[in-house]
Amino acid sequence: MFFQIVDILGTVSFAISGVLVAMNKRMDPFGVLIIAFVTAVGGGTLRDVMIGVEPVSWMKNMTFVYVIFGSVVFAVIFRKRINYLRKSLFLFDTIGIALYTVVGVETGVIAGLHPIICIALGTMTACFGGVLRDILCNEIPVIFRKEIYATACILGGLTYFLLRKFLDDENYLFVVAGLVVIIVRLVAVRFKISLPSLYRKEEG
Amino acid sequence: MFFQIVDILGTVSFAISGVLVAMNKRMDPFGVLIIAFVTAVGGGTLRDVMIGVEPVSWMKNMTFVYVIFGSVVFAVIFRKRINYLRKSLFLFDTIGIALYTVVGVETGVIAGLHPIICIALGTMTACFGGVLRDILCNEIPVIFRKEIYATACILGGLTYFLLRKFLDDENYLFVVAGLVVIIVRLVAVRFKISLPSLYRKEEG
Amino acid sequence: MFFQIVDILGTVSFAISGVLVAMNKRMDPFGVLIIAFVTAVGGGTLRDVMIGVEPVSWMKNMTFVYVIFGSVVFAVIFRKRINYLRKSLFLFDTIGIALYTVVGVETGVIAGLHPIICIALGTMTACFGGVLRDILCNEIPVIFRKEIYATACILGGLTYFLLRKFLDDENYLFVVAGLVVIIVRLVAVRFKISLPSLYRKEEG
Repeated sequence: MFFQIVDILGTVSFAISGVLVAMNKRMDPFGVLIIAFVTAVGGGTLRDVMIGVEPVSWMKNMTFVYVIFGSVVFAVIFRKRINYLRKSLFLFDTIGIALYTVVGVETGVIAGLHPIICIALGTMTACFGGVLRDILCNEIPVIFRKEIYATACILGGLTYFLLRKFLDDENYLFVVAGLVVIIVRLVAVRFKISLPSLYRKEEG
Repeated sequence: MFFQIVDILGTVSFAISGVLVAMNKRMDPFGVLIIAFVTAVGGGTLRDVMIGVEPVSWMKNMTFVYVIFGSVVFAVIFRKRINYLRKSLFLFDTIGIALYTVVGVETGVIAGLHPIICIALGTMTACFGGVLRDILCNEIPVIFRKEIYATACILGGLTYFLLRKFLDDENYLFVVAGLVVIIVRLVAVRFKISLPSLYRKEEG
Repeated sequence: MFFQIVDILGTVSFAISGVLVAMNKRMDPFGVLIIAFVTAVGGGTLRDVMIGVEPVSWMKNMTFVYVIFGSVVFAVIFRKRINYLRKSLFLFDTIGIALYTVVGVETGVIAGLHPIICIALGTMTACFGGVLRDILCNEIPVIFRKEIYATACILGGLTYFLLRKFLDDENYLFVVAGLVVIIVRLVAVRFKISLPSLYRKEEG
């Protein structure tokens, strides 16, 4: 129950971030809906397709479909005032990636894959919705250039596997790994920490 | 037999639309062929991969492969005169999306998925070949910005499920839903109806 | 053993080509890693997903994951001197696409698909990592515009099926088809042969 509410909050914030980017690109309502959808379910879809969970998850759970529809309608109607929600959205988003990361890691564990692959799946679940959103909007994906975003997911995934040696309780691992994602991201944003660009100046 | 001819006409028009976009981007023959292919089979491929129909459909039916090759050769040879065919191509294209929509909806129904998901699959089948074409050509997908295109597919899909309560004959449903797609698109283009952009001016 | 070393050399050169493109786009270390990964395994992933080999190959063989990590670290540390390696990298890359082509063709043969589809799968395996790299970096894929690259793969694939009528030994076919890819590419680059652009000037 608790997890489900968290999951829905994350989906809402992902969908709304899609709506905002799409509207800035002057898309029509159909485009906005698609971008919102892709942002919210893109990462999980990629994960499911790569490990062979088909039909992909969102096709079997209508809750997410309705939540995304609702978020789009809400965001479109209140589009002029959504700036007031920026802080809540940032928080939802951070909670969202934490949860998506752990869901992705779990999916990999269930499929019996190597921990590194599981961490990659967690990061993919959390981050690739945004990557697909940016590609569809003809931008270089923002997470490749700034913000400790994926890094937080990777650290959360690492925590999961490090702790698993000492703990048996999956739920506990779940919560701790998620908290690591949240804390790393909040601290990074608060203190404006980001990874340096690796720009390579051509010689001569 | 009738459906197959319609299907081939749709594939021809999709492939040629890919050839035209790729040539305007100054691609070489290989690039043109790939873009034509992706435009014609991209939507169906995405659908198949997401619901787990693998190998994807076009790999098991060489007819489409030959039709696409033929269309590319034709379009490249007659590239200076293809403007004369613009009206026929528009008609083929409209018939094409109608058929692709219904094929996509049917695939979802066979997989036992929720009507909303089936309509999404129909729309995806009809529209995402064009979306992938635009992404490979580094453009914002045109269907996200203008034209009643996806909307026609969605209305066709809705018609299918509304009518299914009253009708048993799948073939009949097939034809009526397809006609709705065609009529909506023709009317929209004739009267220049399109969805408004949802551009959001930032305040202050 | 021989094949495995060749395969690793190809992966190294693909990963490094990803690192170089990503660094020129001023990406952060995470972006660079992802682009390197996608360049190295993207083509094979697409192939696996389309024919239903899931989880996709690289998730089941950690060697490639480690090789890619190592290549990224190497390329980032020596990024100012990597120009000195340009010739070796070009050679690795050429060997890499030869091997990837044959691996892709074989995968299609094992799945019982039509020779044309197998050749397409071989070409996809060899070339689409680079295509995905360019899309993520917001560029029109370079192989659609210049260089005999995909063409070499297609000719290698054709050779495989033409020779198969006369030869039974798979290993032999493997090597000859690969050599055709390598020779075509070397000759094309040496003599600056490329496919003409099919640019279509609009009339009047």
